[in-house]
Amino acid sequence: MKQILIIGAGRSSSSLIAYILDQAQKNGWHVTVADADPKLAEEKVNNHPNGRGVWLDVMKSNDRKDLIGRVDIVVSLLPAHLHLEVAHDCIKLNKHLITASYVSHELYQLGDEARERELIFMGEMGLDPGIDHMSAMQTIHRIKDQGGKLYSFKSYTGGLIAPESDDNPWNYKFTWNPRNVVLAGQGTAQYLENGKLKFIPYNRLFKEIFPIDIPGLGKYEAYANRDSLLYTDIYGLAGIPNILRATIRAKGFCKAWNALRKIGLTDGSYPILNSENITYHELMDAYTNSLHLTGSVKDRIAALLKEEPNSKIMKKLEWLGLFRKKKINLKNASPALILQNLLMEKWELKKNDKDMILMFHEFEYKLKGKRKKQTSTLIMKGENAIDTAMAKLVGLPMGIFTKLVMEGKIKAKGVNIPVLPEVYNPVLAELEDFGVKFEEQTIDLD
Amino acid sequence: MKQILIIGAGRSSSSLIAYILDQAQKNGWHVTVADADPKLAEEKVNNHPNGRGVWLDVMKSNDRKDLIGRVDIVVSLLPAHLHLEVAHDCIKLNKHLITASYVSHELYQLGDEARERELIFMGEMGLDPGIDHMSAMQTIHRIKDQGGKLYSFKSYTGGLIAPESDDNPWNYKFTWNPRNVVLAGQGTAQYLENGKLKFIPYNRLFKEIFPIDIPGLGKYEAYANRDSLLYTDIYGLAGIPNILRATIRAKGFCKAWNALRKIGLTDGSYPILNSENITYHELMDAYTNSLHLTGSVKDRIAALLKEEPNSKIMKKLEWLGLFRKKKINLKNASPALILQNLLMEKWELKKNDKDMILMFHEFEYKLKGKRKKQTSTLIMKGENAIDTAMAKLVGLPMGIFTKLVMEGKIKAKGVNIPVLPEVYNPVLAELEDFGVKFEEQTIDLD
Repeated sequence: MKQILIIGAGRSSSSLIAYILDQAQKNGWHVTVADADPKLAEEKVNNHPNGRGVWLDVMKSNDRKDLIGRVDIVVSLLPAHLHLEVAHDCIKLNKHLITASYVSHELYQLGDEARERELIFMGEMGLDPGIDHMSAMQTIHRIKDQGGKLYSFKSYTGGLIAPESDDNPWNYKFTWNPRNVVLAGQGTAQYLENGKLKFIPYNRLFKEIFPIDIPGLGKYEAYANRDSLLYTDIYGLAGIPNILRATIRAKGFCKAWNALRKIGLTDGSYPILNSENITYHELMDAYTNSLHLTGSVKDRIAALLKEEPNSKIMKKLEWLGLFRKKKINLKNASPALILQNLLMEKWELKKNDKDMILMFHEFEYKLKGKRKKQTSTLIMKGENAIDTAMAKLVGLPMGIFTKLVMEGKIKAKGVNIPVLPEVYNPVLAELEDFGVKFEEQTIDLD
Repeated sequence: MKQILIIGAGRSSSSLIAYILDQAQKNGWHVTVADADPKLAEEKVNNHPNGRGVWLDVMKSNDRKDLIGRVDIVVSLLPAHLHLEVAHDCIKLNKHLITASYVSHELYQLGDEARERELIFMGEMGLDPGIDHMSAMQTIHRIKDQGGKLYSFKSYTGGLIAPESDDNPWNYKFTWNPRNVVLAGQGTAQYLENGKLKFIPYNRLFKEIFPIDIPGLGKYEAYANRDSLLYTDIYGLAGIPNILRATIRAKGFCKAWNALRKIGLTDGSYPILNSENITYHELMDAYTNSLHLTGSVKDRIAALLKEEPNSKIMKKLEWLGLFRKKKINLKNASPALILQNLLMEKWELKKNDKDMILMFHEFEYKLKGKRKKQTSTLIMKGENAIDTAMAKLVGLPMGIFTKLVMEGKIKAKGVNIPVLPEVYNPVLAELEDFGVKFEEQTIDLD
């Protein structure tokens, strides 16, 4: 019996585990789901005849190797920094490895060894990174095959709340790692515009935003990702004069988030003394000073932000509870952690809330002397707070790819990301069966 | 013959070495000046009969120990992170140690061992930290002895250019580590105002500035230091409702510096691709984008800063050469390093330029039911670009304290900073012989 090991049964593993168990039943495979919390693993397996849930402390090298040694393929849902240990085991024990995380420099360095041993190490096989690579590459290759020459590629992705579940003034709820949302964008974003490198430092990131109009959905906004140039070469786009990768938010979100940044609440670099005993009101008071501003704490924050006390932005801050005389109740917390903790309560998905993934690519190219523009749009909603679109779109690509490997349909060995036709074609085709379908439009610009 | 070792003969060592050699001659001591550049060490000793210059690679543990083993006291002018190795040697070899750097947590941990061995480890014995501690403590102790109760302590220090040598629109030249000037303030400043903790994050640090009026000199401005609360306990000021430490700049400097920060030029966290081949003009172009702004690069930068293209601030930027089509010529440089490199050329002290140190303390206290305010002001100018006030005020306190230790006049053993009367009284008294004199004024507030 062929064996699959899935390490990690936490958030966003449901769709992957369900898909793999289903395939195991059809194909006579066996699935082991391992987690530090064996109950969670068992729950996810739910007495499926082709699966079992087991306990694994991933830091225990012998236990880990023992489990990996018994299977044909490993799917790792571990946090990114833990993949490398698993990868070394897979090299030693001759096992394939699949993850949805960014491929680190260290992991790429295992490429030659993996190739020699005919192992398939596939990274960035989730949503973003993952589906973004596959959908972009399919179009880029098609345009090139037609003889088109790309001069602009812009790619926008956002994990948002579906309009029917959108019931707060921020038009946002957490469907992804809250810490990453709070700290997002620190540093300087880089992209290409008309052949010129452009920088947007963090202090301007949420002000210098890109308006987008998503076919069938309407107006959104996006802020530049740090790494727009990262894939220029691997996508075969060397020399392209325009490239941008950005994160989608509801209209007005960025301006309000910028207010939190400006106050100082997204700084994760220092702990606030005595943070467990002060109130949110006192914290906001600490960010203003009477030398420059007068009035109530709320008035002073409004003045600092150059807002009217009853502006939309101030109402968003007030809705978060930032001016309440309620204790923060977190020891030694940084401003960013205090903000995260507050947002996790306010931006939590309710049981029946539907999340929504948006992915929107814009390709501009010249074909036979004429400029053309193609857009590819994916709009995908979740079922509820457990079966989210996020979990589906992160998990299904790994699941489908695992099946392709088990069936011997993947030739590319070594460390890869899904930019190869033999990978993206079958994965995107099967994703369509799950409703993951990009709507495409092409218009003439000349 | 008693022996003194000075490690480091670089910038700002001149006054210290000259003072120690002079004392050595009077008292029959011998001075060894060690540096990685033995010529520099010999130059500073200048064939003095009581001194010699020697070569030392401070990373070579045996050479270091050999030199330290032969002396009675070590004065370390090394960069702060190298003091700890020297401190461990001093413990092992039973030697006293004097530095002008901030005492690290690790150095404080050697306190018990140093005390057991009856060693004197004195840190923060320069200007700031150093003279600021001593002058503040002398006044604080005097006010307390009179029965006064302090309710506000504000301390401002700046290394500036003397008015007679001030010939650029920024009213500033480098008299101190340029890198520290460029990166100054990153993080969040904390201070106390009316009993409340106040935060100023970096993005507001150069906007929310404190106006000061220095007796006999006029109006300046100051931005808050990161660590205003650091010395509350050690100064015996626990519970004081107002405490602020800040850095002095000429009027208008902070607003212009804030423009550099806003553009993104003070970010030292990432290298700019191809930085050696682009021009300053191209760099500034990269910080603007045509989506939001139009016109020439200078017009776009002005728009981004909400300035008129010919405003004072824009003229300061232009004077720096930020819009010139001249190559940056620095490989893999961060924006902050590019800015530092440019400023080192524009803000360099000319041979006969005089620098100027300002230190200004404001103490407010209640005495017999009446509120009073004392100010202490130090204005000290240098001779020229070599004999700076900075070198004098950093070096002389260490020199004088070394003499006091050699004469057996210091009782406090272990790791200390100069907040004790047995230290600050004789050091401040002798500093007066060198013209280092605080002007004091006391006024009634009631």
